Amino acid sequence: MRETLNTIVTSVDGALAAIIMGYDGIPIDEFAVEQSDFDMQLLSVEYSTVLKEIKRALDVISAGEMEEVSIATTRTRVLMRVLNDDLFIALIMKRDGNFGKGRYLLQLKSFELTRELE
Amino acid sequence: MRETLNTIVTSVDGALAAIIMGYDGIPIDEFAVEQSDFDMQLLSVEYSTVLKEIKRALDVISAGEMEEVSIATTRTRVLMRVLNDDLFIALIMKRDGNFGKGRYLLQLKSFELTRELE
Repeated sequence: MRETLNTIVTSVDGALAAIIMGYDGIPIDEFAVEQSDFDMQLLSVEYSTVLKEIKRALDVISAGEMEEVSIATTRTRVLMRVLNDDLFIALIMKRDGNFGKGRYLLQLKSFELTRELE
Repeated sequence: MRETLNTIVTSVDGALAAIIMGYDGIPIDEFAVEQSDFDMQLLSVEYSTVLKEIKRALDVISAGEMEEVSIATTRTRVLMRVLNDDLFIALIMKRDGNFGKGRYLLQLKSFELTRELE
């Protein structure tokens, strides 16, 4: 699992870290390319809260099952993909990182990770 | 404004509707390509709630100002861009819609819309 996270982070220009975490905000595994400005533990808790809120809203509007969420700010871009009912993967990128490749790779590797987690 | 929304929706394969709305969930203007399965009013309220939650989380983790949020489900894809402190634009697409073109056009037209709204 760590190896897959490593591959994702080192293959995507501008990627800072990849984390597998639960909706309770607890990280299962992570790989970071360098020491970044972000507090990864706080980030995990906050983004898991955001995903839970999105899930709730999607239920209300019957918009289907959540698959992928991306949040871009003036500083950073975070791409998240649902792995199963309990876990998701988050890829943290610089704002000008290769978003397209990040999306592609996260989608590709999610299948592998989901199988590994079964 | 309606014309810009029209251009976005008709230029992007799989686009269903474009809505300019406030964080209070009240739509300012919208253009829909066809009658869709979604209740646009409910959708506006729910997605504005989600954006408010994301904004709050980004403040907590000091991740910069929110710019763009995308939420993909098994049924649909919604792309949102912040226009100013009060308003954002949402593009609702089919799951297999042209996400790349949608992102590009939304980014491009956001500048025009933001100027119009000043």
